[in-house]
Amino acid sequence: MKPMPEINPQRLINDLRQLRTIGKYGTGVVRPAFSEKDLEARQWLLDRMEEAGLKATIDGVGNVFGRSPHSGRGVLIGSHTDTQPQGGWLDGSLGVIYGLEIARTFSADRLTTHFAVDVVSWSDEEGTYMGMLGSRSFCNILERQDMQKAQDHRTGQYLSTAIEQAGLAGIPPIQLDTHKHIAYLEAHIEQGPHLDAQGKHLGVVSAIVGIRTFRLTFNGQQNHAGTTPMDYRKDAGVALIKLARIIEREFPTQAGPRTVWTIGHIRLEPGSPSVVPGRAEMLLQFRDTDEKILDVLTAKTEAIVRKAHEQGPVAVNLEAVFPRIEPAAMDKTVQESLAAAAEIHAPGQWIYMPSGAGHDAQILAQRIPTGMLFIPSIGGISHDIAEDTAEEDIVRGCRTLATATEALLRQAHPS
Amino acid sequence: MKPMPEINPQRLINDLRQLRTIGKYGTGVVRPAFSEKDLEARQWLLDRMEEAGLKATIDGVGNVFGRSPHSGRGVLIGSHTDTQPQGGWLDGSLGVIYGLEIARTFSADRLTTHFAVDVVSWSDEEGTYMGMLGSRSFCNILERQDMQKAQDHRTGQYLSTAIEQAGLAGIPPIQLDTHKHIAYLEAHIEQGPHLDAQGKHLGVVSAIVGIRTFRLTFNGQQNHAGTTPMDYRKDAGVALIKLARIIEREFPTQAGPRTVWTIGHIRLEPGSPSVVPGRAEMLLQFRDTDEKILDVLTAKTEAIVRKAHEQGPVAVNLEAVFPRIEPAAMDKTVQESLAAAAEIHAPGQWIYMPSGAGHDAQILAQRIPTGMLFIPSIGGISHDIAEDTAEEDIVRGCRTLATATEALLRQAHPS
Repeated sequence: MKPMPEINPQRLINDLRQLRTIGKYGTGVVRPAFSEKDLEARQWLLDRMEEAGLKATIDGVGNVFGRSPHSGRGVLIGSHTDTQPQGGWLDGSLGVIYGLEIARTFSADRLTTHFAVDVVSWSDEEGTYMGMLGSRSFCNILERQDMQKAQDHRTGQYLSTAIEQAGLAGIPPIQLDTHKHIAYLEAHIEQGPHLDAQGKHLGVVSAIVGIRTFRLTFNGQQNHAGTTPMDYRKDAGVALIKLARIIEREFPTQAGPRTVWTIGHIRLEPGSPSVVPGRAEMLLQFRDTDEKILDVLTAKTEAIVRKAHEQGPVAVNLEAVFPRIEPAAMDKTVQESLAAAAEIHAPGQWIYMPSGAGHDAQILAQRIPTGMLFIPSIGGISHDIAEDTAEEDIVRGCRTLATATEALLRQAHPS
Repeated sequence: MKPMPEINPQRLINDLRQLRTIGKYGTGVVRPAFSEKDLEARQWLLDRMEEAGLKATIDGVGNVFGRSPHSGRGVLIGSHTDTQPQGGWLDGSLGVIYGLEIARTFSADRLTTHFAVDVVSWSDEEGTYMGMLGSRSFCNILERQDMQKAQDHRTGQYLSTAIEQAGLAGIPPIQLDTHKHIAYLEAHIEQGPHLDAQGKHLGVVSAIVGIRTFRLTFNGQQNHAGTTPMDYRKDAGVALIKLARIIEREFPTQAGPRTVWTIGHIRLEPGSPSVVPGRAEMLLQFRDTDEKILDVLTAKTEAIVRKAHEQGPVAVNLEAVFPRIEPAAMDKTVQESLAAAAEIHAPGQWIYMPSGAGHDAQILAQRIPTGMLFIPSIGGISHDIAEDTAEEDIVRGCRTLATATEALLRQAHPS
């Protein structure tokens, strides 16, 4: 085995633990994008980057960027430090601190000190205002009008106000220079049960699922629940329940082996026990790495809605809503580097797998070679303060990403 | 035909219109119990009662009572002046102003001036804090602990606070003296489509439906909607939809010809498009005048819930909640008086019918002979600002109630 730069496991764990104290909430973290604690964490990261010899800046959408002093082509490593309203301690923080640790390690090792490793923490991956805001901005696929409309649905605050209050208004966005980065690498906890349940330690991501989300609205006739005979009713809730049941029955016949679909929200209006619902709505979302399956399920949904609308007595409407995200295949060469590194650090104990969750990597994948590495989530739990990963898996993940990074950089800079 | 005291149609309509101005909202009225406008309307009514020669008082729960100066046994006529959050202009106001108009008319007519007609506006019939609070208090079937717990679910304010702020704390409740009243009469808009659709002008109520309401809760496992495979899920929403569909399919086989059932409320938690619901709840209510049918549907619901719970993977729980109201038959003699009066004022154009809505009359019916008279609701609309009734139907209803009142008083006081 060739000599490899060795990361500092204690420094890695210490940084993750220190970042966890900013917005700590029980065993988890509350650091939604542009909150006081999110900005405090970003300042903390800027300081760590400077200590590591990186040129650290924050841009006009909140992206924190640590640039290597080396001008050659390099690798960009990162993820995000913002969290869900009540998030886990690892989630995006893991991938950011991996980047920081690898940059520090490579800089200090004579074998790798000449390599450029840039580190990033994207802004608002979790979508407090707009999901993957930072990576979209970096890749220049952000519509100005979408940014103007973006607001925190819990508070009604606009993104533009949040940016202004954070003191970032007027700072130009940092944008991708495709000549600079040979690859983007993002490590993340799996957020699902596969690695943990199979006793595997690493997952090399093959593709990130596409997501289609639809709002179905049902317009009937609101009425008194005591005085309106059953055969007079145009009950929007009854129509919704019937249609939802058809979806649950028919989707399995059209779905692929890893397709997932979810009705995550239902509302009946006015929502009183004594009133026949006049209006109802539900949100239906499905995900797959195969765009053809997404198209088939979209057509199926349209057909079910059309039939229900025609049958009546309740009008049914279907509307595509955010998030709609296209499936993103990971780069083959990057996957191979990650797989080779995984075989070194966890021989026989890693798998190729798709990502069922969305990540900034799917935005970057549209522009540069991109890869993702997963480490196990205990019990498959994520987006919850109970989220956790064994310390040895955290360290193993960083070693694996370092090895893959070195391999990619050596391919780009043959000695 | 015997001479009958003649009500003053213009005075009746004028009073209804004047009462409508207090809390006017479009074509409807906003006067929820203990709101500023509800209390203003109650003060307005106290003044009208005094003008009519009644001894007017308001009691410690907000009931407005107008007592005839005559000490003999008499008839109590009324309804309620509080409204739904956005109510119609007639609803309970109609029955109260009918009582006022009949008391005035009888007092001024030498044939009836010696009869005691008392008038009441019950407090909080609509259940801002506690449905039928006033009539429950009057009939002494109000549990102290229920009153202490009662609160406005929209604002969280307790009933006791509302009573104190209204300046009513410490005023003793007016309570039923069964020796005083030979009958309680309540007129109301139908709130349903039957009279309007059949072209009938009056409904003599045979019975008021009983109401059973249940909360069904589903406890599964909250999870990431992208990373949790379908066969790992314990989706509380899927379990709810499946069970709701079973209810919609199986209830018709057990229900009577006029049974109604309603799922008026559904909530999935946390309610995000990207999260598998871990918890879900729905409210199921059914109504019938036949207690046996209510028992059969209760047993059916219990069996459906038990089976779903045993099948899993989501735990299902069933809990009876307010309102639970027993069916209440109207008094036969009072029904006959109303029917005879209806035949005078709308020959061949009236029907016997059950009430699908709850009314204070079902509380009074537990203690004294009680009857109800319905007039048509245009399009069957109620609990909505669009609620309305033709003026001639309003006047006809009052004439009919006056005739029935006189007949009942003559039976009690044979000359």
